[in-house]
Amino acid sequence: MMALQGKLLKIYVGESERYRDKPLYQYLIRWLKEKGISGATASRGIEGYGKDNILHTARLLELSSDLPIVLEVVDRNEKIEAILPEICRIVPKGLVFSTDVQIHKQGKD
Amino acid sequence: MMALQGKLLKIYVGESERYRDKPLYQYLIRWLKEKGISGATASRGIEGYGKDNILHTARLLELSSDLPIVLEVVDRNEKIEAILPEICRIVPKGLVFSTDVQIHKQGKD
Amino acid sequence: MMALQGKLLKIYVGESERYRDKPLYQYLIRWLKEKGISGATASRGIEGYGKDNILHTARLLELSSDLPIVLEVVDRNEKIEAILPEICRIVPKGLVFSTDVQIHKQGKD
Repeated sequence: MMALQGKLLKIYVGESERYRDKPLYQYLIRWLKEKGISGATASRGIEGYGKDNILHTARLLELSSDLPIVLEVVDRNEKIEAILPEICRIVPKGLVFSTDVQIHKQGKD
Repeated sequence: MMALQGKLLKIYVGESERYRDKPLYQYLIRWLKEKGISGATASRGIEGYGKDNILHTARLLELSSDLPIVLEVVDRNEKIEAILPEICRIVPKGLVFSTDVQIHKQGKD
Repeated sequence: MMALQGKLLKIYVGESERYRDKPLYQYLIRWLKEKGISGATASRGIEGYGKDNILHTARLLELSSDLPIVLEVVDRNEKIEAILPEICRIVPKGLVFSTDVQIHKQGKD
């Protein structure tokens, strides 16, 4: 089977982080859509910590409004590479990494 | 440590997509199980878009019944490669990609 | 752009699995934090199966208290490799795999 070389870009931010009067993860999804990136998905974690070493959790007695949000973005190498510098600028505190993937199917074709 | 070469296969579909009178993601999980694939996990995203460029979101005033569903499937290379053509046939609209992984532990052994 | 070579480690356990009087996934997150690993995120799946071949699901009439939990851990190669043997010992039944990633941004620097 033919496969297209691409990259999976993962971005981890806090649910409460904001950018230009919007939750940061919502801003990012709209920004990626405007840039013509072919797809993005945000998921909410139930517990986690990052560079700040503070544990965020969804459990009852430790209610958090800052759960981890994971964004997954997939596209061809050159499209991911083109947006990376700007992504790193918009996401000052989060984790951003990428990995090589083989795209077997991308939407309706 | 010994590690087994394998592949992580990721499949993105909409929660409302159906296949043979079942939600597509539920059909896929049962199908993978029948094919002897050693494990699969489905997660629900909170927001996302794909090739159709329509934003699906879980937020209050924009209730969606079509949130993104992400399936993760891991097995040895040859087992993932064997099911790929059929997966791409069952998932006409979604995104399907794979990446190489090192499996350090797989179940009870 | 400069990127740091690292590894994404993924660990799949059941929500009901326990270790030393704690849910296993919560034990793992705290253990990773103590070991100085720079970040970890746990997410809850809605359906899945593993080596035991039992399907766990979040649907109404088949309520499960043992949904799949996915842990994602990212750090430099040597830090992930150093904890792998101990992770595999703590997680007797789950799936553990890793993949190479390029880290573009890690926290506040």
